Amino acid sequence: MSADFDGSELKVIAFDVFGTVVDWYGGIRAEVERALPGIDGAAFALAWRAGYQPAMQGVMERLAAGEGGFTLIDELHMGILGTVLEDFGVTDLDAAKKRDLNKAWHRLPAWPDAVEGLARLKRKYIICTLSNGNIGLLTDMAKRAGLPWDCVLSAEVFKAYKPDPRTYLGVAAVFDVTPSQVMLAAAHHDDLAAARVCGLRTGYIERPYEFGSKLKDVSPRAENTLHARDIGGLADLLGC
Amino acid sequence: MSADFDGSELKVIAFDVFGTVVDWYGGIRAEVERALPGIDGAAFALAWRAGYQPAMQGVMERLAAGEGGFTLIDELHMGILGTVLEDFGVTDLDAAKKRDLNKAWHRLPAWPDAVEGLARLKRKYIICTLSNGNIGLLTDMAKRAGLPWDCVLSAEVFKAYKPDPRTYLGVAAVFDVTPSQVMLAAAHHDDLAAARVCGLRTGYIERPYEFGSKLKDVSPRAENTLHARDIGGLADLLGC
Repeated sequence: MSADFDGSELKVIAFDVFGTVVDWYGGIRAEVERALPGIDGAAFALAWRAGYQPAMQGVMERLAAGEGGFTLIDELHMGILGTVLEDFGVTDLDAAKKRDLNKAWHRLPAWPDAVEGLARLKRKYIICTLSNGNIGLLTDMAKRAGLPWDCVLSAEVFKAYKPDPRTYLGVAAVFDVTPSQVMLAAAHHDDLAAARVCGLRTGYIERPYEFGSKLKDVSPRAENTLHARDIGGLADLLGC
Repeated sequence: MSADFDGSELKVIAFDVFGTVVDWYGGIRAEVERALPGIDGAAFALAWRAGYQPAMQGVMERLAAGEGGFTLIDELHMGILGTVLEDFGVTDLDAAKKRDLNKAWHRLPAWPDAVEGLARLKRKYIICTLSNGNIGLLTDMAKRAGLPWDCVLSAEVFKAYKPDPRTYLGVAAVFDVTPSQVMLAAAHHDDLAAARVCGLRTGYIERPYEFGSKLKDVSPRAENTLHARDIGGLADLLGC
C-alpha cells in the first residue's frame, strides 16, 4: 500500500457493487426464505451467486467469438435461477413469482456503512458504480437503498464486462481524466488487479461477511493503493 | 392534452437538459462575459448554441454513412467555439482558457424551480436525463447544480443521438418498462414529437426565457400529454 497516497490527484471513485456496497448474501437469503418457505435461504443464495461466474464466462466467450449480443445481468440471473430452483427441488413457482424473486437483486440492502460513507466521499470526489449489473438494476437498488451516486456506470454503458479493460478505462474516458485519477473500490482482489493493470488506483474494502458466517480472508495486500475496513474507513483514509 | 392522465401508470420521467432543466443562455452569457471582457456575451451564447444543430446534423449524417464514430458533445462544442471565437474577432485565447470556456457547458445553472421540482418527482418516479450531452458533462452539471437524478442517461449510452428512436426506446429498455410508462419532459416540441412517435408520454415545460429576453412562444399544443409552467408545475400535475 502507498502510505504516502493522499488522494489529492484523485477525481473519481468507481465502486464495485455486489458484495462491496450491498450485501447480496443477506438480501437474497432473506428474500428466498420469504418466497420459498422451507428452503435453506443461505445455501440457495450461495448457489445462485456461484452460478454467476460460469454464466458470465459463457457470455464473454460468445461475445468474443462474435456470437450473440450483450446480455443483461437480469437475464443471466434468471437463467441461473431456473437451474438453482431445480437443484433445490422447487417446481411450483409460477412465472410472475419467479420474475419477482429475480428482482431481489434490485432490492439488495446496503452494508450499514455504505450510505454515509458514500455521502462523505461524494463531497470531494465523483462517485459512481462500475458493476456488471445493468443500469436499471443499479438504479432501482440506489433509489431503494439511498445510495447517492453521482452517476450509474455499468458494463451496459461500455458494452463490455469487467474485467475487460474497456470498463476500467471507460470510466476515465467518461470523465476525461487519466486512469490514475480514478480509483476502483472493491471487495475483490481480482477486480482490483484488473483495474491496476489499466493504471487505476485501487481501494480494497473488507467485507468479511460477504459469504455469510464463513469468514472471508480480508488481509491486506501490498499491491493495493489503500486498504479500508469499510466505505467509511475509505473516507477516513482520503480525509473526507 | 389528456385531462384524464393521472400518471398512475407512469414509471420513469426522462428529462431533456439544455434549456429544459438548465439555463444555457444565462450560464454561457455570464461565463463569456467573464472570460472575454468587451465581447457581447448574449450574442456569443446565441451563436454558440446556433452552431449546435448543424454540427450535430453533420455528425449524424457521418454516423449513418458509417464514417467516423460517435462524437461527444464536448468535442462538438469545442469545434463550434473555434468558429464563434473567430466570428467575434477573438484571436488571443490560449488553449487552456479555451478548454475552460468550453467547460462552461458543464457548469450551467439550473432554472430556479428545477432542484426542488425534481426532488418532488423523484419520490414517485425514476427521474433521469435523456440528453445528447455526454455523461461526464451531465454528471459534472448535476453535481454542481444539485440535480438529484436517479440515473444519468445520454446519447453516449445508446450510441445514438436524439431524435433517433433508439434513445427514447432505450430509456424504456433500460428500466424494463413499456414506452407508455416513460414520459419525456422537454421545452422543445420537436424532441417531444419524436418521443411521441415511439409511444412515450410527453410533458412540455415552458421556458419562455430560454433564448433570453426575446420571449419564446410557449403556448400549449394539444398533442402533448401534459403542459407545465415549470418542473414544479409538472410535479403539481402529477400529484407529487
